[in-house]
Amino acid sequence: MGFSFQLQANCTQTQARAGVFHTPHGRVETPRFMPVGTLATVKGLTPEQLEQAGSQMILANTYHLHLQPTETIIEAAGGLHAFMGWEQPILTDSGGFQVFSLSKLRQISEEGVIFRSPRDGRKINLTPERAIAIQNALGADVIMAFDECPPYPAERSAVKDATDRTYRWLERCIRAHQRPQEQALFGIVQGGVHLDLREEAARALIELDLPGYAIGGVSVGEPPEFIHEIVKAIAPLLPEAKPRYLMGVGTYREMARAIASGIDLFDCVIPTRLGRHGAALVRGERWNLKNARFKEDYRPLDETCPCAACQRHSRAYLNHLIKSREMLGYILISLHNVTELIRFTQEIRAAILADRFAEEFAPWLES
Amino acid sequence: MGFSFQLQANCTQTQARAGVFHTPHGRVETPRFMPVGTLATVKGLTPEQLEQAGSQMILANTYHLHLQPTETIIEAAGGLHAFMGWEQPILTDSGGFQVFSLSKLRQISEEGVIFRSPRDGRKINLTPERAIAIQNALGADVIMAFDECPPYPAERSAVKDATDRTYRWLERCIRAHQRPQEQALFGIVQGGVHLDLREEAARALIELDLPGYAIGGVSVGEPPEFIHEIVKAIAPLLPEAKPRYLMGVGTYREMARAIASGIDLFDCVIPTRLGRHGAALVRGERWNLKNARFKEDYRPLDETCPCAACQRHSRAYLNHLIKSREMLGYILISLHNVTELIRFTQEIRAAILADRFAEEFAPWLES
Ligand SMILES: [Zn+2]
Ligand SMILES: [Zn+2]
Repeated sequence: MGFSFQLQANCTQTQARAGVFHTPHGRVETPRFMPVGTLATVKGLTPEQLEQAGSQMILANTYHLHLQPTETIIEAAGGLHAFMGWEQPILTDSGGFQVFSLSKLRQISEEGVIFRSPRDGRKINLTPERAIAIQNALGADVIMAFDECPPYPAERSAVKDATDRTYRWLERCIRAHQRPQEQALFGIVQGGVHLDLREEAARALIELDLPGYAIGGVSVGEPPEFIHEIVKAIAPLLPEAKPRYLMGVGTYREMARAIASGIDLFDCVIPTRLGRHGAALVRGERWNLKNARFKEDYRPLDETCPCAACQRHSRAYLNHLIKSREMLGYILISLHNVTELIRFTQEIRAAILADRFAEEFAPWLES
Repeated sequence: MGFSFQLQANCTQTQARAGVFHTPHGRVETPRFMPVGTLATVKGLTPEQLEQAGSQMILANTYHLHLQPTETIIEAAGGLHAFMGWEQPILTDSGGFQVFSLSKLRQISEEGVIFRSPRDGRKINLTPERAIAIQNALGADVIMAFDECPPYPAERSAVKDATDRTYRWLERCIRAHQRPQEQALFGIVQGGVHLDLREEAARALIELDLPGYAIGGVSVGEPPEFIHEIVKAIAPLLPEAKPRYLMGVGTYREMARAIASGIDLFDCVIPTRLGRHGAALVRGERWNLKNARFKEDYRPLDETCPCAACQRHSRAYLNHLIKSREMLGYILISLHNVTELIRFTQEIRAAILADRFAEEFAPWLES
């Protein structure tokens, strides 16, 4: 039981580090990509396939699970791990991002947010206390503070207000949290693209001595260069002995550069979303498997990949499945993509442990 | 290499028998249900999952594979086994049934059938020789004669013509077959609901000494009672030392009764089709998992079932997935349904081996 973050190696040329984050449901070796299972399912993959892909911690979403099936059902099932059949670590995000990005009709006040359920039009009142109560019921190993995520672009004054409110809401989240021994509450650094607001927010959060820290509100439409600048400025300010999580980022280049600035954890819906569109991630490229050039290509997607799609099937077979709109095509490509992104972070981890990261991943680190 | 059918036990109270059908890709323990992988994929399931479900021989479809991706692609991939990553036995049906049931625009002559591809409107000429050539290229362990499957209802004279033509086509199939050492060609008994036509067809086929026999043209819309009557009359006529396959049948009662008449092999699209609609087969019943009665039902679908859906998940989780239209819901229920029907035939097999079939399965055998 309990949480600890054990640093194993620091890169001598960058801020990159390798570590192990211990949680009540097991270890998470960092840096590591975390697959996203919004509705308590990583789309198209069974828990066995997620294990085979090398998944350790996976995500689920507080907002979506509150609407369906509700935290009451999941708590009665014995919590999210039992409900979805996943015995390794889980992280739930607070729903802040979804409330602000998915709900058209919403009223924000100091108290919280009132919005209408997109499922049935029902009025829902989400406050920091409520977001934590839901996450306490879901029972993930890591839970996220309820934050206000400003859109991009936004007025500086609006971003400042949202950032300040996020801090006050964090204080309320901490007070509301009922299971700190079993669930680690991570704070989220907001501040949009304004580095001074980000720095101010980070310094205030550090004072609260949380078990982990996230950088949020990136990958919301701003150019990728901003992500890099924000991470480069903020990650090194965060406590060295705590895990650092960059929310919503999962592209090769952005992960490699964020790791070079000291980030440990990533999540992104990209691998399964691409999989459902028949697009495979192969050594940094995106291949549309529907393309006729794969029709008679009997090689595996990537012969070095340990996934079942690569070990047992050819590009020609995947092309056939995608052209035929067969579910198995989406499944196999999703499995490959999740495996691929986890493997990318595992390879980076191995390179950091051998202090070869800066050389081996140089092509990814150039701007 | 080569084929043989080894009888292991005969029921002392019915015509039921247990056996092993040896093929170049391994054994098929009979009686056994065979999952259907029309387009070289059993919908939604990986080969690993099919193995876990207890699949031995699976089906694929000549007609569909000829249209997409074509037998040329599959042959170049090393045959159907390599193409779809399935190393156990495969059976291809000839396309006769699909040509007659799916193609609106067709001309039938003694030579064969001309129809328009539903994919691109292209004119396709399918003859017994062509159907066998395609199946020789696909390389399944068992291939089926190209037959004319009359609809139900149909005039007796039309059924008689189709049945006689099917016999002449079978003779051409036998002459056209290029790989008899590696691929067993099964003949198909037609004759509609007319038992005298069926008997006549069966006796003619037996003279040809084929490595296996099928009863086709059932489950085409006639009442289930007809299936039973046809099987009861025809199965005992077929050679005892050859496998007997009842095409397109895969419901509990019809399989149990057909086994009691001496049938060994079954196929049906039902388990995966139901799975894609969120309906589970549980101990002979069909459960719609979307139903609100499963919302807080934390038990597995069937605690005695070895499948991953039952071992790792609850009815409440499946209800959540189906309500959310999550792909994993269709996958898990398809996996369960395929496992369930195979298990039903495995249990019958075990009962026959212990000579307890007539007692244990009495409820299924009553009319
Ligand atoms: Zn792969
Ligand atoms: Zn099951």
